[in-house]
Amino acid sequence: MSTTLSPTPRTQVSRGKNRAVPDRERLHAFLGDALLAHLGVTVGSGEDAHPVVLPTAYGFDLDGPDAGGSLYLHGSVAAGWLGRALERDVCVTITELDGLVAARSGFHHSMNYRSAVVIGRARLVEDPEEREHALALVVDQMIPGRWATLRPATRKELAATAVLALPLVEASMKERAEGPVDDPADIESATWAGVIPIHRVAGAPVTAEDSTAAVPEDVVRRAAGLAERSPR
Amino acid sequence: MSTTLSPTPRTQVSRGKNRAVPDRERLHAFLGDALLAHLGVTVGSGEDAHPVVLPTAYGFDLDGPDAGGSLYLHGSVAAGWLGRALERDVCVTITELDGLVAARSGFHHSMNYRSAVVIGRARLVEDPEEREHALALVVDQMIPGRWATLRPATRKELAATAVLALPLVEASMKERAEGPVDDPADIESATWAGVIPIHRVAGAPVTAEDSTAAVPEDVVRRAAGLAERSPR
Repeated sequence: MSTTLSPTPRTQVSRGKNRAVPDRERLHAFLGDALLAHLGVTVGSGEDAHPVVLPTAYGFDLDGPDAGGSLYLHGSVAAGWLGRALERDVCVTITELDGLVAARSGFHHSMNYRSAVVIGRARLVEDPEEREHALALVVDQMIPGRWATLRPATRKELAATAVLALPLVEASMKERAEGPVDDPADIESATWAGVIPIHRVAGAPVTAEDSTAAVPEDVVRRAAGLAERSPR
Repeated sequence: MSTTLSPTPRTQVSRGKNRAVPDRERLHAFLGDALLAHLGVTVGSGEDAHPVVLPTAYGFDLDGPDAGGSLYLHGSVAAGWLGRALERDVCVTITELDGLVAARSGFHHSMNYRSAVVIGRARLVEDPEEREHALALVVDQMIPGRWATLRPATRKELAATAVLALPLVEASMKERAEGPVDDPADIESATWAGVIPIHRVAGAPVTAEDSTAAVPEDVVRRAAGLAERSPR
């Protein structure tokens, strides 16, 4: 596999080129680190076409059958966006906010973040083995190791769940991870400049009222792992 | 102003209706609380039309000139998405992840979150006063009170910045804030079920190497406020 991303004109980062991260390994590390995706689907047609952007969980398999590896999404077979997501190209954007960048001027205020944009035609996953594997990856993206501790999915559950795969080939990644970049004329000003680091942390796991089991290792690890993530 | 949201068929929550939050005040509180938006823009035409979803800062003014109040975005006048965002309806989705929901079955795994979806035609803000007000709101969304401590924007900076306004009228909000909902048959299983609360925290402000000013109150407050946010 190529170690650099292959942006097409659609994913080519046109603004802030210095923020583009042309390194597949860093994209993969980021995909492993993040928790939430936003799926953009075009609905309507002609002049009425407009995007709908929905938050969603995701999983990914670099050895999946799609070019560049497979990004997996799932949803209810009854979801309104599902048919639309298969008819036209979609965009999946995964972003983690890492800091608030306070410059001397309003103009240079910014955010530190990592963001991956994947564009392509989604494939409805129909192979039973790949479907289960994809659902396991989505659950394990949230809590690594969790799927193996669960009972198998039932036929009814699988029938109610649609699994989509998006090739990771048409992908770009941007990262900003630095302090404010002020105009030289502003540096001497008395205005403070710097970064407020932002990161996600997990609180202690909250056991469901009707659950009598001890908190399992995978959940403890996930909570601790998020809590230990260092500020960027 | 109506205290309930007015979803059109486009923003009507079609899945998980029990998650829809038909309360304008809760939408407004959430908009005040969140930090990051995802802007969806349709690019291309006909069969080639596809969405591009980009992370962005935002601000909002409930008394803004648009129906329902104004959601403000800004960008470089040279940004490739800008023209597209004005030609067709866009979608802005703002999401905060609040927890990972571990059920007894993979099928019932979920996330706790708050998410607002706003669809509409963006307006290019041209009035100088509204432009500056909008930029102040975007900066103050990141660090409340910051704008008032900064030098005024220069003509050159303002000329380089495009400001867009989106009416907050066609908006919907969803929230999930509860424990796992398992099938009755699974409740007795030995599998742990519960929630790992997730929240954003701020680290201690990192002063830029070339900044000699003391950390100002607004920055201290923002860092402390994020850190104190209780897990949901």
